[in-house]
Amino acid sequence: MSNSLTQRLLDGDRRALARAITLVEDDRPEGWELVREVYPHTGHAAVYGFTGPPGVGKSTLIGALTKARREAGRTVGVLSVDPSSPFTHGALLGDRIRLTEHFLDPGVFIRSMANRGALGGLSEAALQAALLLDAAGRQDVFVETVGVGQAEIDIIDHADTIVLVLMPGSGDSIQALKAGVMEIPDVIVINKADHPLTDTMVREIRGVLSLANLDGGAERGRWRVPIVKTEAAHDKGIAELVEQLDAHRAHILEQGTLQERRGRNLRNEVLAIATSRLRRQLEDELREDPEFKCLLEEVVQRRLDPASAATELLSRRS
Amino acid sequence: MSNSLTQRLLDGDRRALARAITLVEDDRPEGWELVREVYPHTGHAAVYGFTGPPGVGKSTLIGALTKARREAGRTVGVLSVDPSSPFTHGALLGDRIRLTEHFLDPGVFIRSMANRGALGGLSEAALQAALLLDAAGRQDVFVETVGVGQAEIDIIDHADTIVLVLMPGSGDSIQALKAGVMEIPDVIVINKADHPLTDTMVREIRGVLSLANLDGGAERGRWRVPIVKTEAAHDKGIAELVEQLDAHRAHILEQGTLQERRGRNLRNEVLAIATSRLRRQLEDELREDPEFKCLLEEVVQRRLDPASAATELLSRRS
Repeated sequence: MSNSLTQRLLDGDRRALARAITLVEDDRPEGWELVREVYPHTGHAAVYGFTGPPGVGKSTLIGALTKARREAGRTVGVLSVDPSSPFTHGALLGDRIRLTEHFLDPGVFIRSMANRGALGGLSEAALQAALLLDAAGRQDVFVETVGVGQAEIDIIDHADTIVLVLMPGSGDSIQALKAGVMEIPDVIVINKADHPLTDTMVREIRGVLSLANLDGGAERGRWRVPIVKTEAAHDKGIAELVEQLDAHRAHILEQGTLQERRGRNLRNEVLAIATSRLRRQLEDELREDPEFKCLLEEVVQRRLDPASAATELLSRRS
Repeated sequence: MSNSLTQRLLDGDRRALARAITLVEDDRPEGWELVREVYPHTGHAAVYGFTGPPGVGKSTLIGALTKARREAGRTVGVLSVDPSSPFTHGALLGDRIRLTEHFLDPGVFIRSMANRGALGGLSEAALQAALLLDAAGRQDVFVETVGVGQAEIDIIDHADTIVLVLMPGSGDSIQALKAGVMEIPDVIVINKADHPLTDTMVREIRGVLSLANLDGGAERGRWRVPIVKTEAAHDKGIAELVEQLDAHRAHILEQGTLQERRGRNLRNEVLAIATSRLRRQLEDELREDPEFKCLLEEVVQRRLDPASAATELLSRRS
């Protein structure tokens, strides 16, 4: 038990929060225990997920949003989930400098998570970390992922509001939206909008939204996905973005979809954690298992097919 | 048992092949049984995986490659793995028309797989289908995925050679390569290369490769990732692409990395199939389980945290 850590976390103590997130990131039992203890105190934060290709300025945007939220008197937590190491990549590191101006503000807690040790463990740990920020009383939680595929959307799928950040030149993402490969988010931001191609891009996205019937109009009570143009590095468009984030939150509260969404997300989270544990159990069992090595050799020699090998593995366990 | 189907498949019968792939796609026990039977006859095909954002012309490129391979007297199998339905998306469908000219050639077998029924089942089924094509004597197997993230790379990770297809305007993918979010493939194609920005793009990619130390030079025996410019719709650059695909194959054969790669891929495949089965078992058990519903309600009411709910689920099973 870690009573004092729990209490300090609930009191909003930053060092306790940092320690607690490290515990869940390292997959330590005390970390899970802590989340269990503070869970009844969660559910109050507004959680926003930001996704989009690297280089579009997500961190800068979150930095600008953080500033706006602080000015409105709210406390903020930022989780940056980055499976590529930020320290070997200049572009990403530079991007994150924008957040440093908040490092000394006790009302802002920033944490980068890059531990990709356990298979699938990163997204699990990120969700636990978001719960810890929530329990510690952070009113707004911004979760950022670096990437452009469906896997990245999955990580932030547990947010109340999902924001896709693009910039002029994000052709691949627009194609992915068009083709239905990437799901449509709640809010779309075009950052670095001081570019001659911005308006062409807005038109393209409008086209995608109208095909998906998400440009508002027709159906009452349906959310109209806004496209917000920003230049985060110069604080331009941030006020409008804040307005749209608030509007989305008001909408899901009013329609009752926030509860629905959270219920569905929690169900998926329970299943994801259970599956991930089963997989880890299996991996652990097999790591040094000589029988598994023999089985694999049979597969490599084309004497036993992969599915039969999997069947044999599973039957040996039960 | 399906002796006659097995024999017809091994004889290269197209209808048997179509039937067999349907069986694995539908996750039917006969399908898995069939793969088990023919598995000793696999390992002869050269398997190429193609990934890249939608709209870059992957299908057109594969169509042009198929033509070149047929002219060289080789038989071809094409698997298009598309979790978004191709029939509701004009762009994708149009893209695939290029392949229709091969529909009547018995030396070409084309199959689109879009069944996303079972969680994670699509990539499993695609791998089984590739084994079936291999067993049926297809000399070249082209597997195509639609998408741009790491998940899509995972699907084609079991190929011997991985080809990333881009076009001028694929800024997001280049950023993802730069940031190390997307792994570097064996061959990079810039399709639709009749565009003024093509050469700028080549330079950008060269930069990424040289940072990753994959532009050749230094280390002996190391593969130099080629960048091939194509206009697949006009058969331009296809000869050079064929040459580079052959060169990569010669390289991995010579270095012994083909066997190494296949060994590692088969190991991952066994684990992926086992994990996917565990997950499906769990989902099946829970679908109508009233206790699971109660557990979830506790989570939604913030009385029980998701990880503890997962623990309880798993402990009830054993």
